Amino acid sequence: MIVVLHPSADAAAAREIGSIARKAGLRSVPDDPAKPRRLALVGAAPDPGGALAAELEQRPDVAAVIRDEGPAPLASRHFRPEPAPVMVGPTSIGGGGPPVLAAGPCAVESRDQLLAVAHAAARAGASLLRGGAFKPRTSPYAFQGLGPEALRLLAEARRETGLPIVTEVLAPEQVELVAETADMLQIGARNMQNFALLAAAGAAGRPVMVKRGMHATLDEWLLAAEYLLASGAPGVVLCERGLRHFDSRTRNILDLAGALAVRELSHLPVIIDPSHATGRRDLVTPLALAGLAAGLDGVIVEVHPEPDAALSDGPQSLDLDALAAMADGIRGIGARLAAPASAVVTPGIQGWISSR
Amino acid sequence: MIVVLHPSADAAAAREIGSIARKAGLRSVPDDPAKPRRLALVGAAPDPGGALAAELEQRPDVAAVIRDEGPAPLASRHFRPEPAPVMVGPTSIGGGGPPVLAAGPCAVESRDQLLAVAHAAARAGASLLRGGAFKPRTSPYAFQGLGPEALRLLAEARRETGLPIVTEVLAPEQVELVAETADMLQIGARNMQNFALLAAAGAAGRPVMVKRGMHATLDEWLLAAEYLLASGAPGVVLCERGLRHFDSRTRNILDLAGALAVRELSHLPVIIDPSHATGRRDLVTPLALAGLAAGLDGVIVEVHPEPDAALSDGPQSLDLDALAAMADGIRGIGARLAAPASAVVTPGIQGWISSR
Amino acid sequence: MIVVLHPSADAAAAREIGSIARKAGLRSVPDDPAKPRRLALVGAAPDPGGALAAELEQRPDVAAVIRDEGPAPLASRHFRPEPAPVMVGPTSIGGGGPPVLAAGPCAVESRDQLLAVAHAAARAGASLLRGGAFKPRTSPYAFQGLGPEALRLLAEARRETGLPIVTEVLAPEQVELVAETADMLQIGARNMQNFALLAAAGAAGRPVMVKRGMHATLDEWLLAAEYLLASGAPGVVLCERGLRHFDSRTRNILDLAGALAVRELSHLPVIIDPSHATGRRDLVTPLALAGLAAGLDGVIVEVHPEPDAALSDGPQSLDLDALAAMADGIRGIGARLAAPASAVVTPGIQGWISSR
Amino acid sequence: MIVVLHPSADAAAAREIGSIARKAGLRSVPDDPAKPRRLALVGAAPDPGGALAAELEQRPDVAAVIRDEGPAPLASRHFRPEPAPVMVGPTSIGGGGPPVLAAGPCAVESRDQLLAVAHAAARAGASLLRGGAFKPRTSPYAFQGLGPEALRLLAEARRETGLPIVTEVLAPEQVELVAETADMLQIGARNMQNFALLAAAGAAGRPVMVKRGMHATLDEWLLAAEYLLASGAPGVVLCERGLRHFDSRTRNILDLAGALAVRELSHLPVIIDPSHATGRRDLVTPLALAGLAAGLDGVIVEVHPEPDAALSDGPQSLDLDALAAMADGIRGIGARLAAPASAVVTPGIQGWISSR
Repeated sequence: MIVVLHPSADAAAAREIGSIARKAGLRSVPDDPAKPRRLALVGAAPDPGGALAAELEQRPDVAAVIRDEGPAPLASRHFRPEPAPVMVGPTSIGGGGPPVLAAGPCAVESRDQLLAVAHAAARAGASLLRGGAFKPRTSPYAFQGLGPEALRLLAEARRETGLPIVTEVLAPEQVELVAETADMLQIGARNMQNFALLAAAGAAGRPVMVKRGMHATLDEWLLAAEYLLASGAPGVVLCERGLRHFDSRTRNILDLAGALAVRELSHLPVIIDPSHATGRRDLVTPLALAGLAAGLDGVIVEVHPEPDAALSDGPQSLDLDALAAMADGIRGIGARLAAPASAVVTPGIQGWISSR
Repeated sequence: MIVVLHPSADAAAAREIGSIARKAGLRSVPDDPAKPRRLALVGAAPDPGGALAAELEQRPDVAAVIRDEGPAPLASRHFRPEPAPVMVGPTSIGGGGPPVLAAGPCAVESRDQLLAVAHAAARAGASLLRGGAFKPRTSPYAFQGLGPEALRLLAEARRETGLPIVTEVLAPEQVELVAETADMLQIGARNMQNFALLAAAGAAGRPVMVKRGMHATLDEWLLAAEYLLASGAPGVVLCERGLRHFDSRTRNILDLAGALAVRELSHLPVIIDPSHATGRRDLVTPLALAGLAAGLDGVIVEVHPEPDAALSDGPQSLDLDALAAMADGIRGIGARLAAPASAVVTPGIQGWISSR
Repeated sequence: MIVVLHPSADAAAAREIGSIARKAGLRSVPDDPAKPRRLALVGAAPDPGGALAAELEQRPDVAAVIRDEGPAPLASRHFRPEPAPVMVGPTSIGGGGPPVLAAGPCAVESRDQLLAVAHAAARAGASLLRGGAFKPRTSPYAFQGLGPEALRLLAEARRETGLPIVTEVLAPEQVELVAETADMLQIGARNMQNFALLAAAGAAGRPVMVKRGMHATLDEWLLAAEYLLASGAPGVVLCERGLRHFDSRTRNILDLAGALAVRELSHLPVIIDPSHATGRRDLVTPLALAGLAAGLDGVIVEVHPEPDAALSDGPQSLDLDALAAMADGIRGIGARLAAPASAVVTPGIQGWISSR
Repeated sequence: MIVVLHPSADAAAAREIGSIARKAGLRSVPDDPAKPRRLALVGAAPDPGGALAAELEQRPDVAAVIRDEGPAPLASRHFRPEPAPVMVGPTSIGGGGPPVLAAGPCAVESRDQLLAVAHAAARAGASLLRGGAFKPRTSPYAFQGLGPEALRLLAEARRETGLPIVTEVLAPEQVELVAETADMLQIGARNMQNFALLAAAGAAGRPVMVKRGMHATLDEWLLAAEYLLASGAPGVVLCERGLRHFDSRTRNILDLAGALAVRELSHLPVIIDPSHATGRRDLVTPLALAGLAAGLDGVIVEVHPEPDAALSDGPQSLDLDALAAMADGIRGIGARLAAPASAVVTPGIQGWISSR
C-alpha cells in the first residue's frame, strides 16, 4: 500500500509509520528520504482484512492510503505521481526534461575505436556514452568483450568527453567491478528476469537501465524495475528495444505504444533503442525520430567508425556521419536534446570527473 | 520478369514484347501505358531455363531484364524504381510529396455526426475523409453500419468539404455500389487475404487502400497489393494498423519499421492507422507524430464528436478538440501536411465534385 | 440470453417466448427445433435493465435464464451443455464419439491423383475426403485450383469410396455451386473473419468446417462459428491449423491447448490440421497422434501420391504409404477411429449417394 | 568443424588432432573420452580458407571432416548422430529408451508436502522428483522458496523413494550448493540466456535440464545447451514449457512440433512441461499424453497435495489423484514409462544413495 502523508507530517511521523509497518512484516520506503511525502509499504505479507490500512487512515498525519497500488508500487505513479528525473553523472534523464541521446559502440573493441565514437557522440549532442565491456553472446564461441580493459577505456573516454558511461553487467559477481567505472549499469533484455542479477545491480549504488525482454509484458518490465528499486537502486531507466516477432525483414518490432503506456503507469524515464529494435542501420534514424516525436525521454544507438568491420552488431550500427545526420534529423523535428555534458565541461564537471 | 526498355524504344516495341510474352503464357503490364519504360511480364507460367529472358535481353529495344523481381513484381521497386503518388480525388498520396491526414468516424452514424467530423477534419488540414458504411464486426449481432444511407451521407460530406472519401468494402457483390461513391476503396485487415474481394476491388476502377492483416508478413501484404494491381487497380495505398501481440495494455502493436521496410521494397505509399494500432485514444496522437517523423506518407485516424457515445471504436476515437490538437502537434514537429482539398475548393475542384 | 425451459414446457411455450423476444428485438433460436429444451435469444438489442430476463424468469415454463452467455451464445455450452455431434453425410463428428480421420489432397489436380488418394484414405480408415477445388493462393499468379471440374471429380471419388466430401469455398458467389457437391463446406483460416462469406456459407444448408485464423483468439474463432450458426448452418466443426509464430523451422505452431480449451467453452467438435500446422511432412503424424491422444475429435491431413510433384503444399503432404503408417500409429496409441464410411457402403449409403 | 575419425584411429590419433587444433586456437572435444569416434573442434577462431579442415582431411586416421556443423556443434547430430541417453542418478532419459515422468511440487513448502508428493510420484511411475528450493519470482515481494532447507528435504525424499532430484538454480553463486544435493540442475526459462549461469551450471559436474525461453528460437535453445556442454556438463536435457502468445485463455502455447524438430537437430533428450505450458490443471494431462504420443522423451509436471493452498503455481498443479489418473492415461495410450527408480530400490540403489 502507499501512504500519502499529510502536508504537515514530519520525519518523525514517517518513522513512526515505518515502525508500525515493520511490525506488520512490511518495509516502509519513502519517496524522498529527506522530506517524505509518500511511503510505500512493501513486502510479502499481505494486509489481511485491510486492518493496517484502516489503522493508518485514521492517523492525522496520513492524508490517504492507496490500496490498489499494483504489483510494482515503488515504480508506480501511486508512489511518485509525476515523472521523476534520474541523474546519471551530470546528465538528467526524464522528469519532463528534454530527451537525451546515448550513443556508442556495441562493444568496446579498441582505444581508437572508442575515442572516435565518443568524440563523435559528444559532437552530435549525446549526453551519455554507451559501450559494452562484457557482452552477452548467444554463442559460447563468440567474442565476449574486452572486459576490465574495456572499463579502463570507457573511463578514459569519459575523461576526454565528459560523457557519463552506461555499460552492461552480466552476472552478480561482476557488479562491483563494473559499478566502479559505470555511471549507470545496464541490464540486458535477456537478463530482464535474472532476478539474482537485478538484486545485485540494484544494491550497487548506481542508477540502472533495464531493457525490456523481447517477450516481456509491461507489468513484468515494471517488476524488473521494482526488483532494482527494492534493492536500493538510486534510479531506474526503462529501455524498450523491440519485441520478437514473426517477420524476417526486421529483427524485432519496437513497441512505441508500450513505451508510452508504461510511462503512464510509472514515474521512471523511458527511452528506446532503435538499433536493436530493427537490426537494420537504415531504419535506426527514422525510429529514433519517431520515438522523440512521440515524446519519449531519449534514444540509445549503436555507433561504430567502420560498421562493416565491427566485431558485433555491425549491420545495425550507424557510422560517424550517420550519427551526425541523425542529430540533424532530431533538430529537424524540433526536438531539443538535453544539454550534452561536453557543452558543460566546466570546472564543476571536471571536479565531478576527477573526484571519481 | 521485368523488362527495362531502352530509352529509344517506342510503343510498338512494347507491343511487340507483349506479344512475345503472351505466346509464353505471360501478360505484359507497362509501368506507364502512355509511355512505357518498363514492362512486367507476369503469370503462372515460369520461364523454364530462362529462355525468354535470354531472348529479350538480345533485343536492341531492351536495356535490361530483371529476373529476381520477387513475388510481387507490379508492387515492387523493380517495376517502378521511385515512389509513385496515388491520386485520390484531388489528393495526392506518396510519391515523395508531403504526408496526408485522413480522418473521420469509425462508422457513419448520422448526418450530424458525419458532417461535424468532416468539417473538423477539413479545418485540421485533413485531405481525406474516412467513414464506414459497411462495418466488419466480430459479432454477428453488433451494429453493421448504415449501408447505402451512409454512402449518401459521405457524398454529401464530400460536397460540403471537398474532401475525397475512403470507405470499406466487405464483399465482392458490394464493390460496384461502394465504388459509385468512394474515391478510394478500403480493404480491412481481416480481409487482406480475401482474394476474391481483392480481385473484385482491384477491378472497380478506383484506387484501393489495403490494411495489413494483424498477422501478415510484409511479403503477404505486398502480395495483397499485387492482387489489386494485377486486377487493374489504378493505385494502391498500404496502411499499417498494428499487429496482434501478447500485452493487454495496448490492443495491437504498430510495426513502424515494417511500414518503412515495405516502402523500401515498393513504390506504393504507406500510411499508418494509430487508432486501430493502439485501441487507446491517449496514444493516437503520439503514434501519429511518430509515423510522420519517421517519414511515412500519412496517417488515418478515427474521430467522433462524442467518442464515449460512439456505436463502435469509441475508446480509440479522438474528439474534435483532440483532432485539432493533433494537427498542432504535427506542425510542432515541422511536418507540412499535403494541401487539404478544402483549401483548394476552386472551380476546378467544384467541377470535379459536380462531375461525379 | 439463454432460456432454459422447464421440462414440462411444450412447443407452444417456446413459440410464445419467441414471440415475446421478437417484440424486444431479439430472435429466438431453439437448441432442438423438434423438442426445444433451451432457447437462445440473440440480437443487437440489449436487454436494458434486465427487464426481459426478469419477466421470463417469472414464467412457470421457464426453469432458468442465463444472462452471462458470452458473445457467442449459439456456439456455447450454455446453449448446449454437452458436446453435440455434427453429421457430415454418413459420418458423425464429435459428440463424444470416436475421432474421425479426414484425408485428401491439398488441391484436386487430376482424376487419377484424386482417386488414388481417396481409395488410400478409405483403406486407412478415413471417414471424410478433403480436396480443394477453389484454392486461396497468396500470389495472384499461382495455381488457383481446377474449379467446377474438381467438384465433379470429388463427386466421383465419393461414389467410389463412400467418403463424404469437405472442400473450401472462397467467395459468397461460389457458395451455391460448391454446396451442390460438398457434404461440408470449408472456410479457410484467411477467411475466418470474412463475415460476408460466413453469412453466405451458413445459409447454404450444409455443415461448415471453419479453420482458426492464424492470429485468432478463441473468442474470435467462436464468433466465426456464431456467424455460421446464426445464418442457419446445420452444424459447425472447428479446425485448429496452427498459429503464426517466430521460429522458421516450423511453419506455424499448433495450439493444442487452445483446441481443448475451446471445446470446454463450446459444444462444437474440434479437430486439428497437422499438415498446415507444421508445414513439414515428418511432423504430421506425430502431431496427429498428439491431437488424438489429447482427446480431440479428429484430424485432417493432406495426402498426395507424389508429394514432391504436388502443385501446392507438397512439403507437408503425406504419401500413400505414410498415410497407412499414420493409421497404424493411431491404432498404436489405442485410438479407435470412427467407422469409416467405406465400411458401411450399404444400400442405405448408396441410396444416400445416389439421391444427391 | 567435426572430425569423424577412421574406425582404426586410436586415442593417440585423437590426441594428436587435438594438439593440431589447439595450435589453430580451437579446442577438441571427443564424443566419448574413452573411445573417441568424433571430435568437435570448437572456438572463436574460424578456419580461414578452410586450411585446417583440408589438412585434417588428408590424414589416414580421419574418415571425414564436417564443415557445416552449425552454431551448436556439441549439441548437434553431426557430433553424435544418434539420440544419446542422459543418466540422472539411476534414471536414463532419451537415447531412444522409454519416456520418463518427472513430478513434484512447484516449490518445496514443507516436509509433509514434499514427502506426500514424492511417494505419490513414485507410485505413479515417475522416475524423477522435481521441486523448487530457490524460486524465480516475477515480484520481489513473492515467496522465494525455502532455500537450503528445501535441499535437505529433497535429499530426504530421495532417500525415501529412490527418485533422483531435479531442482532449479538461479545464480552462479548458488550452483555449488545446489549441485551437492541435486541429481540434475534446472535452468529456468527466464534464465535460458543467462550466459554466466549457464557457464557455471555446466561446470558443476551434474547433468542440466534447460527450459526453452518463452521467446526462444530452436537455435537459441540449442546454443544454451551448447554453453552447458562447452562448460563440461555431463548431459543436457531440453525441456519445452510453452511460448508466450496472445490468447488469454491459456498461459502459454506448447510448441510440440518445435520439440520434435529440435530433436531432429540434436542428440539431446527432449521433454515437455505441460504445467507451465498451459497454466491450467485441466489441460495438463491431455498435453502430457499428446507429448508422449508424439514420441518425446518425457514429461515433467507440477503436483501438490492441495493445489488450491499452494504457495505458487496452484492453478496448474495436479493433485495426487489427478497424478494417478494421468499415469492411467499414459498406460491407456500404450506408452510404457521408464522403469521408475522406486521399482529398483535394491542394495545397488541404496548404495548409490548412501554414497552421495
